[in-house]
Order: sequence, then structure tokens, then C-alpha cells
Amino acid sequence: MTGRVAIVGLGPGSAEWMTPEATAAVAAASDIVGYGPYLDRLRLRPDQRAHPSDNRHELERARFALTLAAEGRAVAVVSGGDPGVFAMAAAVFEAIEEAPEWRRFDIRVAPGVTAMQAAAARLGAPLGHDFCAISLSDNLKPWAIVERRLRAAAEGDFVIALYNPASRARPTRVGDAFALLRGVKEPATPVAFARAVGRAGESLTLTTLGEADPSLADMATLIVIGSSQTRFIKRDGARAWMVTPRAYGDRR
Amino acid sequence: MTGRVAIVGLGPGSAEWMTPEATAAVAAASDIVGYGPYLDRLRLRPDQRAHPSDNRHELERARFALTLAAEGRAVAVVSGGDPGVFAMAAAVFEAIEEAPEWRRFDIRVAPGVTAMQAAAARLGAPLGHDFCAISLSDNLKPWAIVERRLRAAAEGDFVIALYNPASRARPTRVGDAFALLRGVKEPATPVAFARAVGRAGESLTLTTLGEADPSLADMATLIVIGSSQTRFIKRDGARAWMVTPRAYGDRR
Repeated sequence: MTGRVAIVGLGPGSAEWMTPEATAAVAAASDIVGYGPYLDRLRLRPDQRAHPSDNRHELERARFALTLAAEGRAVAVVSGGDPGVFAMAAAVFEAIEEAPEWRRFDIRVAPGVTAMQAAAARLGAPLGHDFCAISLSDNLKPWAIVERRLRAAAEGDFVIALYNPASRARPTRVGDAFALLRGVKEPATPVAFARAVGRAGESLTLTTLGEADPSLADMATLIVIGSSQTRFIKRDGARAWMVTPRAYGDRR
Repeated sequence: MTGRVAIVGLGPGSAEWMTPEATAAVAAASDIVGYGPYLDRLRLRPDQRAHPSDNRHELERARFALTLAAEGRAVAVVSGGDPGVFAMAAAVFEAIEEAPEWRRFDIRVAPGVTAMQAAAARLGAPLGHDFCAISLSDNLKPWAIVERRLRAAAEGDFVIALYNPASRARPTRVGDAFALLRGVKEPATPVAFARAVGRAGESLTLTTLGEADPSLADMATLIVIGSSQTRFIKRDGARAWMVTPRAYGDRR
């Protein structure tokens, strides 16, 4: 028994951000598995089968993809952004871990532009120095580990990208995170809400940690919180740029 | 006076990882500014001017690009990987900050696949959970801030991607970083050295924090150090996969 699965990153949404590798991997697949709205972005041929799902039950979706591959189908599992960043790659390997016969499969991962990179490109250069990425979802981890990581990120003075900041099931987590960070970081720290970058309804809001309004965040929002070095470069008649210089403190 | 600069990420090296936006931005430029080996990857037309530089003096290179733009040239500043991640975007905005007249320029950033994503794609899914990126270069920041961030990253139990781990000028920093991390993290923590991923001479080495050999790292190496949850999935006759599951601890 053998099988083949490509785990493919489609990027944030716009076709100009989808790599040639990802495009080729989708074209080479007989079966495409993924969250419905991601499949809707693709122009599949009549001979290709789409298997849309909701945005939960990732492990079941991964098992389903591997089962199709075991049947000899050429399977692509698609994620928005980068499949290795809070997306399907980990779920597929977790499913493989459960079933030794799947370890013989040929698994390829096609990376993609992830939400924090798209947001950073629009904002200027907020990730210009050391940074970290934290998912605020506590579906799969205790909130205590999120708090531990937020505190460590603040104490390490990292730029922080917050993924999955809010959902209907947990609307208060963004506010909780801001409250924790305000205990460690300066109120003047630059903050950006980047919503749906590269898709319809894109919007960018610049503010500070002291004034950041948690209600601006939904599941399509990526939040960037600066380090002590991050600043806004103001412009006449245009949105300021958000920049974290390469140098720290006095170094130039 | 007005001007136009595109800050373009070429990805790690392979053409299949360069976005259509990046390809179009290079094609639209009259003048391409960047580190020589990155320019060598591009097939420029006879009417395009290449301005190669060494891999230092980023701020001077940024000023040069902005000066060309002020003269009415259509300038692309190219970086390997993502220009927003330890690359040219921050330098261009720092140069803009020095000269108010440059704030009127039209500056576009084209994101790209960065080294840690390319490495993760080859390794499996090591960034499957919260992670951080730290440059070990202390050209522009004091080593004390690197140590502070390594300690915070370990205490927050992040997966850690180390950029710029070594150079001839600072060969001992990788060893210093491993020694610090060994004081906080388990010796069995999975570690990967990912060298030149997507380019000639690509190599991947899996080891553990307890056994990691600093001399495996050079400037073309990206090092990934797991969290407490990261593990290897062993395979017969093939390199193990390195995976950080989406769930933390007992959660599934």
C-alpha cells in the first residue's frame, strides 16, 4: 500500500500570493480536501473532485484525506495561508501517527504566504526584528498556556502576531490578552488590526495597546502588537507605516 | 517629487516558491537593487538595470534605492525569503524615516515564503503550534537582548526558529544559544538544521538539543528547536518527520 498527499498553502486569498508550486499541486490532484471557502477559490476541472468541509474537525478531515490516498487517489489538502502555520499540516501528521501504514505515504508540504506576512506587507515592516506567532484559540490548548506565552513574549520584547483572536464561542479572549499585555508593555506600543488582507473586505486599523478595542477583532483578523522598538512613521494624507527597525536600542 | 519602490520577496530560492506578485514586481521595475546572489537568480531584460551589492550596508542600499526612485526610476529592492522577515523592508522604512520627502513615495511590499516556512515544509510540521523567530546576529542588537529572547522563548515553550545562526565573525553564538536553551529545555527536545532549503546543496539534519552540534550551522542554515510537545515520527527507510501537534498536553 502506498499513497500520495500534498498539503498545500493557498496564501491569504489573492491569486498573486499563491505560489507556482501550490498551483501545480492543486492541478496534479484528483481529489481536493479542505474548508469550503478555500475550495471555492480554486477553479477545478470537471475531472477533479472537491471535498469541502467546515472549519472544524481537522483531524477527521486529515484521516479522510489519507484514506482517499490509500485508495490510490492523488490528494491535495488545502489550507489558507501556510499549511504549517495554524493549519492542516500538523493535523495530517497527527493522523499519520495513529496509523503506522500511512507512514509509508509520500507526503509533500507546499508552503504559502501566511496571514502575518500579508498583514506585515500592507502595514510596512512591523516584523522587522524578532517576533512570535500565538494562536488565541483555546480549543486545543488550555488558556493557561496562552497566558504563559503572552507573558513570555512580552518579557522577551518580541513583536507579537495574534492568530484566531476571536470567535463567537470565545469573544472575550482578545480583551483578556490585551489586559495581560498592558501589565507588561507600554500603553503607547503600536498595535494593528489587519482584517481579511488580500480578500474582499480588507481593512487595516492602527492604534496603540492602551487604546486597542478588542471588538475590532473577528476570526478574519490578524493582530500585530509591536515591541518596545516598533513605531509608526506618519504620512500626510495616508495611513502611517508600522515599522520595527532592524537595530535594537542605540545600535545602528 | 514622487517615487515608487517595490520591496520584493523572492522566496528561498526555487522558482516554484516565488509568488506571481513578486515576479510581476520585478518585471515592472527599471532598476533592481539587492544582494548579488539574489539578482543572479533573476532573468532580467536588457532594458533593466541590476544594482548588485554585498550582503551588508542594508541602510545604504535602501538609501540608494530611494534616491533612484526620486530620479523617476521604477525600483525593486529584492530580498531572499520574505522582505519583512530579517530582510530589506525594515531598512527601506528606516531610510525613509531619515528624509521626510521620501514619505510621499509609493512603497509596496511583496511578501514571500521565508526560510522557516521552507524548512518546516521539508521537515513535516514543526511550526504546527505557537512559535517565534529570532536572529542570532548581534551586528545590530546587543547579545544580551538575544539571550533575553532565547530565555523568554524557552520559558514560553515556543517552537524556536533561529535565523542567521553563524558567520565567520561570530562562530560561537550557536553554541552559546544551545547552552542557554539546555538550561531550560529538555535534552530530548527535537532540533533540525535546515541548510539552503530550495537551493543547491540543500541538506536537513535531525538531532536533539542535548546532542546538537553547533558546527553544523552556517549562514545558510535555519535551525528549528521544538517545544515540549514537538516530536519525531519515525519512518522505515526515510527521514523522520518533525511535528508539533496542534493540541497542547492532554487536549485533542
